[in-house]
Amino acid sequence: MTTRERVYLYDTTLRDGAQTTGVDFSLEDKRLIAGLLDKLGIDYVEGGYPGANPLDTEFFAARRTERAKFAAFGMTKRAGRSVANDPGVAALLEAKADTICFVAKSWDYQVTVALETSLEENLAGIRESVAAAKAAGREVMLDCEHFFDGYKANRDYALACAKAAYEAGARWVVLCDTNGGTLPEEVAAIVADVARHVPGDHLGIHAHDDTGCAVANSLAAVKAGARQVQGTLNGLGERCGNANLVSLIPTLKLKDGFADRFEIGVDEEALAGITQLSRALDEILNRAPNRHAPYVGASAFATKAGIHASAVLKDPRTYEHVAPESVGNVRQVLVSDQAGRSNLLAGLERVGLHVDRADPRISRLLEAVKEKEAQGYAYEGADASFFLLAKRVLGEVPEFFMVERFSVNVERRYNAIGELVTVAEAIVKVKVGDEILISAAEGNGPVNALDLALRKDLGKYQRFIEGLELVDYKVRIFQGGSDAVTRVLIESGDETGERWCTVGVSANIIDASFQALTDSVVYKLVRSGAGRE
Amino acid sequence: MTTRERVYLYDTTLRDGAQTTGVDFSLEDKRLIAGLLDKLGIDYVEGGYPGANPLDTEFFAARRTERAKFAAFGMTKRAGRSVANDPGVAALLEAKADTICFVAKSWDYQVTVALETSLEENLAGIRESVAAAKAAGREVMLDCEHFFDGYKANRDYALACAKAAYEAGARWVVLCDTNGGTLPEEVAAIVADVARHVPGDHLGIHAHDDTGCAVANSLAAVKAGARQVQGTLNGLGERCGNANLVSLIPTLKLKDGFADRFEIGVDEEALAGITQLSRALDEILNRAPNRHAPYVGASAFATKAGIHASAVLKDPRTYEHVAPESVGNVRQVLVSDQAGRSNLLAGLERVGLHVDRADPRISRLLEAVKEKEAQGYAYEGADASFFLLAKRVLGEVPEFFMVERFSVNVERRYNAIGELVTVAEAIVKVKVGDEILISAAEGNGPVNALDLALRKDLGKYQRFIEGLELVDYKVRIFQGGSDAVTRVLIESGDETGERWCTVGVSANIIDASFQALTDSVVYKLVRSGAGRE
Repeated sequence: MTTRERVYLYDTTLRDGAQTTGVDFSLEDKRLIAGLLDKLGIDYVEGGYPGANPLDTEFFAARRTERAKFAAFGMTKRAGRSVANDPGVAALLEAKADTICFVAKSWDYQVTVALETSLEENLAGIRESVAAAKAAGREVMLDCEHFFDGYKANRDYALACAKAAYEAGARWVVLCDTNGGTLPEEVAAIVADVARHVPGDHLGIHAHDDTGCAVANSLAAVKAGARQVQGTLNGLGERCGNANLVSLIPTLKLKDGFADRFEIGVDEEALAGITQLSRALDEILNRAPNRHAPYVGASAFATKAGIHASAVLKDPRTYEHVAPESVGNVRQVLVSDQAGRSNLLAGLERVGLHVDRADPRISRLLEAVKEKEAQGYAYEGADASFFLLAKRVLGEVPEFFMVERFSVNVERRYNAIGELVTVAEAIVKVKVGDEILISAAEGNGPVNALDLALRKDLGKYQRFIEGLELVDYKVRIFQGGSDAVTRVLIESGDETGERWCTVGVSANIIDASFQALTDSVVYKLVRSGAGRE
Repeated sequence: MTTRERVYLYDTTLRDGAQTTGVDFSLEDKRLIAGLLDKLGIDYVEGGYPGANPLDTEFFAARRTERAKFAAFGMTKRAGRSVANDPGVAALLEAKADTICFVAKSWDYQVTVALETSLEENLAGIRESVAAAKAAGREVMLDCEHFFDGYKANRDYALACAKAAYEAGARWVVLCDTNGGTLPEEVAAIVADVARHVPGDHLGIHAHDDTGCAVANSLAAVKAGARQVQGTLNGLGERCGNANLVSLIPTLKLKDGFADRFEIGVDEEALAGITQLSRALDEILNRAPNRHAPYVGASAFATKAGIHASAVLKDPRTYEHVAPESVGNVRQVLVSDQAGRSNLLAGLERVGLHVDRADPRISRLLEAVKEKEAQGYAYEGADASFFLLAKRVLGEVPEFFMVERFSVNVERRYNAIGELVTVAEAIVKVKVGDEILISAAEGNGPVNALDLALRKDLGKYQRFIEGLELVDYKVRIFQGGSDAVTRVLIESGDETGERWCTVGVSANIIDASFQALTDSVVYKLVRSGAGRE
C-alpha cells in the first residue's frame, strides 16, 4: 500500500476574502468563520492582517482556532528600517498566532517601481523578517507576491526571493499568482522548476480566478510538487476571487489522481458537511448562494426534464460524477412524480416530520407543493413555511388566529414645519378565539409597520411571541413586467437564538410580505407549544 | 512569421444553455441572442433541438444567422429504425440549418443500460445518421456523449464511436465531458490519444464545470490538438454550467501560448464589446450579473483600498493581467478622488453629456455622486437617474412638477360575497405650474397603483408621457435586518421602443419606488423636449 503524501490547506477567507466587493467581516463574523474552518479540518486559518486595522489587531488578541494553525499575515520589513524597528513586524510578533505569513515582492519591476527600493534590499528584508519571526518561536511562511509574473520577467530574481525565505528557515514558500493571469500549463512548468530549488514539500500555491483557472492552477501546482494550497471558502476574494476551497476539497478527496496520491486534513464526515458550510458562509455574509457552484450548488446535481432524467433514475452513476451525499448535497430530478415523492420525503425528514412512506397523505402534500410552486412559491430556503404546509396537509395545525382585515398606508407629505416626511402605518384586525383585536403600528416602511401591528396583540397567545423578531427580508420579482410575481422571504429569530425562514408570493408585495409574516408567527406558536394547552 | 492555426468556437447557449435552472428562452430571446453571437464572430450557433419542442422547431423554420453557421442538434437514429424512418433525424433534415450536430452515446455502459441496445447497433446508428445528413448536403458533426467516462471504461469502444463518425464524413467529432467530472490532466492525455485516431483539426471539446475546471479543460484540449471549443455565454448550462465562452475568448485572444499560436473568428473590436454582450445576455434573461466573472465582471478590475491602490495608479500593468479596455471593461480603483473623477467623466460621456474636464461643476457632481452612493444609490445600471443627477448639478433640469403628497393604501379584507381580496390604491397630488392636480388609481400592488396615479394627469405635460410604461421592477435589500435599505431599479419604455433605468433608495420600499418612478417620468419629459416650449 502506497503512502499518500500530505497536502496542507490554507484558508485566507478572513484576509484575502475580506477584499471582496461588498464584504465586511465583523469580529463576530470572523470568530464564527474561524470556527467553521477549524471544524472542517483546514490546516491553517489566516485570520487577517494585525496592525493594518483595529478589528484585525483585536482578532489576534487571542488564538481563535483549536486544531488549525492560526496564521497572521503582514509585510516583510520596510526598506530603511531594521526588523526590530518595523511596526508591521512588531504587530505580527505581538499577535497570538502560531504562524506568521509574510508577504514580499518577488517581481523585480514591482520592487523598483512600486516599492522604490533595491533588489538586494528586498531580499535582505525577506531574510531578516523570516529570521526574526523564527527566532521568536513562530512557524514562518513567505507569500511571494506576483511570483509567476516575476518569474516570467526575471526568473533568477524570483527564485532568489523564494530561496532567501527557505534558507532563512521558512516552513512554506508560497507562489502567488497575484494578478490571476497565469494559465495552468505555465503554473505546472514554473512550479516544477521552482521545486528543483525549494523542496516541493515546502512549496505552496496561491491562485486567483481572473481567467477562470484558479482551481485548475491549484491542482496543476500540486501535481507539479507543491504541497500547500491557499484559497478561500466559496471563492471569495477581490476581483474574480481566490481559488475556491469548496471546489478543491471534494476533488482532492474523491477524484482519481488526487484521492489516491494525497491526504488532506478534511475527513469524510467533514466533507459531507461542506454543502452546509458553504451555505452557512453565504448566510453570515448575506450573499446570494451560487446555485451553480461545483459540488455544493443547489443545481449541482439537478437534472431538468428531457433525455437525462429517466436515465439518472435508472442508475445515477451514469450522470453524476460523484455521489451528491458525499458532499452533503442532494440529487434533484425535476421531472417525474416518483422523484418528486423522494424529494418530498427527504424534505419532511429535514424539517423533522417523520411520515411513513406509504402514508396516503403524501400524495396530497405533493400535489399541494406542486400547486404552490407553480404559483411561484419556493420552499428551498423557507423550511418553516414548508413545515407548516406539511403540517396543515397532515391536519395538525391549530387555527391560532384569523386575520379579518389589514390595511397599510404609506404617505409622503409635508409636515407642520415644511419638511418632506414619509410615514407608514398599518392596522391589523385579528380574531383570537372569541376575541376581536385590532392593533395599529407605525414603521419605517410598510412591511415593518405591518409586522409590528400583527405582533402587537394576539390575545392569549401574545406571551408566546414576545421574543419574535424579523431578522432579514428578501424580495425577488420574477416574470418581470406587468405579470410580475413577487416572492418575499423572511428570516425570523427568537429569544432562543433559533432562526427560521418563511415565504410569501403574490402580485402584491404587501400581500406576499404578509403571508411570510403570518407563517412566521404561526411557526413560532407551533414551536412554542402554544396550541397544546 | 508563423501561421496560426484556426480554432473554431461553437456556442450552445440556445441549446445546452436552455437547460439552466430558471432559464427559458422565448423565440424572440433566441433571435436576439443568435444575432449577438453572430456579431461576436462565433463560428457555429447551435440554435436548439428541432423536433424536441415546438419552439425549437419554429426557430429552425429559417436560418437565424448571417455569418455564423447555424447548427441543429439532435439524436442519432433510434435502434430498430432505419434512418429514413426516424422522426428525430427527419426533423433535423427539415431544419433550415447549415450544420447538423448529432449526439450519440460513446460509453458502453450507457449504450447497454440507458439505451438498452447493442454496441454494434449504436455504431451503426452513428454511421448511418452521419451519412444521411451528409448525403442531404449538410455539414455534419457528432457530439460523443460521456466520451471521457466512456474512454476510461472502455477505450476501444469510445474510440470506435469517434472513428465511426469521422469515417462516415463528419466534419467534427466532439468529445463531451457530459458529467463534468474529468480533470484537466486527464483531458489533455485523452485528447492527445484520440488525436492519433481522428485528426486534431476534426476534434472538438465540450466541457462542463462540475469541478470548476471547464475553462481549463477546454484550454487543455486545444493544447492537446482539438480545434473546436464548445461552450455557452456566461457559462450557462444545467448543473454547474458549460465552459464559459466569455472567459475563454479573451484568453484565446490575449494570452501567450494561445494568441500567438491560434486564430479565432472574434476580432479585436468584437472582443472590446464582450463585457457589454455578457451584460446584455443577463438583461435579456433577467439574471443578476456575476460581478466576479473573469474579464467582464464589474469587479474584475476593481481594487479595494489598501496596499494595491496606489501601485495600480502608478502603473496598471503591475496589477492587471490584461488591459480592461481590451474586453470593454473598466478599471475601478475604489479609493482616490483622482480615479473617481475619471470614472465620472467616462460616465458622463456614456450618457451623452459632454462636459469639459476642467469644468468646476465636475467636483460638485463627484461629491453628489459619492454622497448618494454612501446612502446606497448605485448608478451602474441606472443611467437615466445618473443623467438627471448630472443635469441637475449642471443646473439644466426644469422643474416640471412638484409632488405635494402621495398616499398608498393596501388593504386585505373580506368583500361583500365573503371572498378575501387585497386592494391597492394610491393618491398623488402634484403641482404643475400653477395647477394643483390630484389623481387616484387602483393597481395590482402598491407600486403599480402609485405609478398609475402619478402618470394619470400631469396637466400640460400629460401628452409627453402618454407612451410611458413600466417594463421591469427590481428590488434589492441590503444591510439586512433593522437597518435595511431598499434599492429599487425600474426599467421604463416608451412608444419609440427606447428603454431606460432609474433608481430609488430608502428604508421604505414605497418611497424608494416612488423616487425611481418620478425620475423615470422626468427623464421622459426631458427627452421629449417638454421643458423647451
